[in-house]
Amino acid sequence: MPWTSTNRIYAKPSSSGEGPVVAAAKARVSPTAAADTGGRFELSDHGYGKGSIKLLHVHRDGEYHVIREFEVSTELKLASESAYVIGDNKEVVATDSQKNTVYLLAKKHGIKTPEEFGAVVVNHFLYTYKQVVEAKCHVIEYPWERLQAGAPHNHAFIFAPTATRWCEVSQTRHEAVVVKSGLKGLRVLKTTQSAFVDFVQDEYTTLADAAERIFSTVVEAEWTYDNMRTADFDNAWLTVKDAILDKFAGPPDVGVYSPSVQHTLYQAEKTVLEKVSEITWIRMTMPNKHYLNIDVSKFPANVTKGDPRHHIYQPIDKPSGLIYAQLRRRPKSQL
Amino acid sequence: MPWTSTNRIYAKPSSSGEGPVVAAAKARVSPTAAADTGGRFELSDHGYGKGSIKLLHVHRDGEYHVIREFEVSTELKLASESAYVIGDNKEVVATDSQKNTVYLLAKKHGIKTPEEFGAVVVNHFLYTYKQVVEAKCHVIEYPWERLQAGAPHNHAFIFAPTATRWCEVSQTRHEAVVVKSGLKGLRVLKTTQSAFVDFVQDEYTTLADAAERIFSTVVEAEWTYDNMRTADFDNAWLTVKDAILDKFAGPPDVGVYSPSVQHTLYQAEKTVLEKVSEITWIRMTMPNKHYLNIDVSKFPANVTKGDPRHHIYQPIDKPSGLIYAQLRRRPKSQL
Amino acid sequence: MPWTSTNRIYAKPSSSGEGPVVAAAKARVSPTAAADTGGRFELSDHGYGKGSIKLLHVHRDGEYHVIREFEVSTELKLASESAYVIGDNKEVVATDSQKNTVYLLAKKHGIKTPEEFGAVVVNHFLYTYKQVVEAKCHVIEYPWERLQAGAPHNHAFIFAPTATRWCEVSQTRHEAVVVKSGLKGLRVLKTTQSAFVDFVQDEYTTLADAAERIFSTVVEAEWTYDNMRTADFDNAWLTVKDAILDKFAGPPDVGVYSPSVQHTLYQAEKTVLEKVSEITWIRMTMPNKHYLNIDVSKFPANVTKGDPRHHIYQPIDKPSGLIYAQLRRRPKSQL
Amino acid sequence: MPWTSTNRIYAKPSSSGEGPVVAAAKARVSPTAAADTGGRFELSDHGYGKGSIKLLHVHRDGEYHVIREFEVSTELKLASESAYVIGDNKEVVATDSQKNTVYLLAKKHGIKTPEEFGAVVVNHFLYTYKQVVEAKCHVIEYPWERLQAGAPHNHAFIFAPTATRWCEVSQTRHEAVVVKSGLKGLRVLKTTQSAFVDFVQDEYTTLADAAERIFSTVVEAEWTYDNMRTADFDNAWLTVKDAILDKFAGPPDVGVYSPSVQHTLYQAEKTVLEKVSEITWIRMTMPNKHYLNIDVSKFPANVTKGDPRHHIYQPIDKPSGLIYAQLRRRPKSQL
Repeated sequence: MPWTSTNRIYAKPSSSGEGPVVAAAKARVSPTAAADTGGRFELSDHGYGKGSIKLLHVHRDGEYHVIREFEVSTELKLASESAYVIGDNKEVVATDSQKNTVYLLAKKHGIKTPEEFGAVVVNHFLYTYKQVVEAKCHVIEYPWERLQAGAPHNHAFIFAPTATRWCEVSQTRHEAVVVKSGLKGLRVLKTTQSAFVDFVQDEYTTLADAAERIFSTVVEAEWTYDNMRTADFDNAWLTVKDAILDKFAGPPDVGVYSPSVQHTLYQAEKTVLEKVSEITWIRMTMPNKHYLNIDVSKFPANVTKGDPRHHIYQPIDKPSGLIYAQLRRRPKSQL
Repeated sequence: MPWTSTNRIYAKPSSSGEGPVVAAAKARVSPTAAADTGGRFELSDHGYGKGSIKLLHVHRDGEYHVIREFEVSTELKLASESAYVIGDNKEVVATDSQKNTVYLLAKKHGIKTPEEFGAVVVNHFLYTYKQVVEAKCHVIEYPWERLQAGAPHNHAFIFAPTATRWCEVSQTRHEAVVVKSGLKGLRVLKTTQSAFVDFVQDEYTTLADAAERIFSTVVEAEWTYDNMRTADFDNAWLTVKDAILDKFAGPPDVGVYSPSVQHTLYQAEKTVLEKVSEITWIRMTMPNKHYLNIDVSKFPANVTKGDPRHHIYQPIDKPSGLIYAQLRRRPKSQL
Repeated sequence: MPWTSTNRIYAKPSSSGEGPVVAAAKARVSPTAAADTGGRFELSDHGYGKGSIKLLHVHRDGEYHVIREFEVSTELKLASESAYVIGDNKEVVATDSQKNTVYLLAKKHGIKTPEEFGAVVVNHFLYTYKQVVEAKCHVIEYPWERLQAGAPHNHAFIFAPTATRWCEVSQTRHEAVVVKSGLKGLRVLKTTQSAFVDFVQDEYTTLADAAERIFSTVVEAEWTYDNMRTADFDNAWLTVKDAILDKFAGPPDVGVYSPSVQHTLYQAEKTVLEKVSEITWIRMTMPNKHYLNIDVSKFPANVTKGDPRHHIYQPIDKPSGLIYAQLRRRPKSQL
Repeated sequence: MPWTSTNRIYAKPSSSGEGPVVAAAKARVSPTAAADTGGRFELSDHGYGKGSIKLLHVHRDGEYHVIREFEVSTELKLASESAYVIGDNKEVVATDSQKNTVYLLAKKHGIKTPEEFGAVVVNHFLYTYKQVVEAKCHVIEYPWERLQAGAPHNHAFIFAPTATRWCEVSQTRHEAVVVKSGLKGLRVLKTTQSAFVDFVQDEYTTLADAAERIFSTVVEAEWTYDNMRTADFDNAWLTVKDAILDKFAGPPDVGVYSPSVQHTLYQAEKTVLEKVSEITWIRMTMPNKHYLNIDVSKFPANVTKGDPRHHIYQPIDKPSGLIYAQLRRRPKSQL
């Protein structure tokens, strides 16, 4: 019989069951466990951890305070599958303990960058628990900036979410730490120097060539590092952000021409690989946030005429174009 | 019989009705209309309009472009209640036409400030349609900033949502325009110079006096103007924002002491009224976004000891404190 | 000098101030307090409390469990303004204590309905603290439903957010409790029996008469009670929900004709006032969520022809129409 | 010089550039194109399309109407990289045309299931455009249910988001269609028959064994099909949903004991593979949404004592546990 629900959760049901046996204070493993292992099915992936551990780190060096606020997630993969298959928790590091660990490691070691803190976390789990075969740590950084009025403020900050930084650090036992960094929510717009022409025209096409259009996007980027030890993570993140702004906007006076979102995206990626040698590959996503011309031809002249310098567009939330590409260094053997 | 729903919307129902009479191409007013008017009930308020009209205005003055992106809502109150009571639309200005009007007014007059554009809109509706007795216009401005790399960019912008500006403009026939302006989403944090002590201690209290705590809030403010004609709306908005930052953060070197959210809020409001003479009253809301100390006393020393300059807090999304107050100029007769 | 922020919060500033005086362990009231009171400004409104106190109440009667999950906000208005004006907290009931109180009252008294629990809370604050002149309690109920497979489940529930219930209870000292209840998020759609014709046609109009259109809305409603003691709050909420569905959808076979959102809204309100005598007034908001016809006339026949029973529409998130009205019982003297 | 932004977008900058050359009406390919291909970098992945195409399909069979509302995304991978590398659009099927195509295919063929519609879309793109080497289609279905009051309604529906259905269909030229289906947002809670005991206890652990706890989660699941042709997609989706509810809740009277989220998740997955033979593998994610006991031991007895059947918990939004696993059929060679 299919499961349904009722709108009334308040009234007592007419049919009353026998009632549950009170759960044994000490849980037992599933009696049908043996039948499950070696059976028809197998776990092809698994993991567990604590998501969204919120954390503010304050470094108080005299009167000058530095903050970093993170949302951290941890994840462990255990060698044994028995927690899943037979409900045996004896090798399970509780997600509550993982949360404690994140706080205690931040307290003990401080936080230099999200990437380095992530490496501390995954190292700790692999070193401390022999049953862990893989550990991951995902960090989102909250975009606080130091306030200033004339001079930088010693201890006051403002939330300035022009772009959000994140990273994911993972390590499998006996292998190197792998670091992926990212940026999201970088929203930009330009009012000229963008076109889209000479695309496929067929019976499904109603869009006309546009020699001049608004170009607006909300950039996401992610990239990995060849070499964790030499990387300057703060600098790399800022370099990616600057490369995107540079290839999108161009020089302050004349800008830069964009024949398509695809090409602008590619130019930004190429710039990053040229500028940051530790980055192995970079992937960007640039939705095309449309701004449509308002067609005033349907209205009589007396309600539409005005200063010709005024232009009006209708921003469209959905749908949007969706463009992405991943660029990597060509293996040396192919050069 | 109560209304419910089923999970299956695909299968044909077993009971099949007679089927609806095709709606007459020309709708008729409700035949029971007469019974409704003069009856037991009366409309004590009503209005209708178009919500969330998205609009980008670009002012192209040669190579230098200025943008403002808005989300505009309009609302009209008609003298007659017959659209509600008997379904007669003949005095109804369609919400689709209200949308057209917003675009056409922006095209014709351009946009100086959200407040002045709102006034253009409400004036238009009252002037154009004699059946309108009250018109409102709500505007949210998207926080675009001009990009710069050395020099300000001629035509490229970045979305920088440190605070969002809005306003609501309304006018009743034969009365003056009323303008309310606002700011929301201004999120700040300071790591010292905040305390909360000497409050009520009783059997419901577990919070201890805190001589030193993190102070973080997300400020909302709204205010009205005495005199629409002399107000400098852009300047007023920036002055409010600065007053909040100033009373929250204090001087860059030593900051300013806050004995409570209430007092800081009050100080910011007082500063606004002192600085902007056209503002009649101002209301601010400052939730107290809590950052809790992580209690490490439950853990053994070997896992907690570290550099004493590192401090770790747990940010709490819910619940938060919620503090507000409205400050106004005292009527002259009372001074 | 205006307040700004910098992208780099990590580097030490070159200009280093004297540093803040360590905040006195015991806070003092503002030395400028006297100057503020009796001055040019006055508080015209104020209040503070705790927002978003999350709470699950489980009533365990043998094997049969009943749950209600709430998000509660409390708010107190104190007789004295000194917390705001001079930073004196001695009459302040901490928002943390307000949170404790909500939990303890739920534990002690249980929860019958959101409205009755809200009344318990505001009564408590007024009775316990003589400095409180007004107390408010806002409750949002999470829409859990009891699972069933054949029979209702004794202790398992599913989240079924077809509509969310809320209420706001407030009381001023020496006055009666005031209860406002509400419903939000009730989203419905019908595919026929909706028209919009005979509205104003002028130079701002491009919308044509529509004898047949999709009608979809997300209903919000709020209402107050004459008499708190005789009201059946659970039943009233369900009656409002049913009235909306009934006047929107009509009989299962033929439906009911809607000449406008305004008229359907009015019919639903009238039904509520007819059915629930304790309700004083009701206010509903029904945005008109547009579903546009896809114009296929721009395409050649070979890509558009198909089964004529298939109709395709484009749902529009923004903008939407926005219609509201408030209906009340006419004072007896006017009947 | 790093890119920054200013708060003032209204004032004209003092430094005025030479101004952009007006973009040629006909865009040219990048003159530096040759240098980019065959260079140091290569595109390792790319694609583009239209995201969030909103669509309502109404099937009107006499008086009985069936609806499905979707949010569709399409994505194409072209053989050539020249759109990215040199800004040449001549093989680019505009995302606007992709949107048109989705509407026209829905009009022509109607919609049976999201999965089958997705297959129609990807087939169309591969068949119509020889330059397309891979096509994808992602569909989110809006959870409408048919209203009923006694009988099912012919044409009125209610939005009932207890769980959201989605799918992703993709096809590479010369290969079979691949279908992945999913479910998200299925939120459940039970008040007994859940424990978590016998996990690792060490110096990072503060959580005690819990023989009885609230168990609440918001389930996500995704799975693939072996054989697209024989699959009954509507039935499979409902079977997955029922398996989750069944293994979570157990029999209505006594429920089912859960020793951990991991084990309950595994049981649900195993049930799906047993019941739906066309499903190759299934992956579920079950965050552990914590509900903490309110510790009343800190308060005096007079404010805590009450009916012992009342139990109060604090729901926690962040952090939450995060548990997932993927279960697949064991290859036959291993059996």
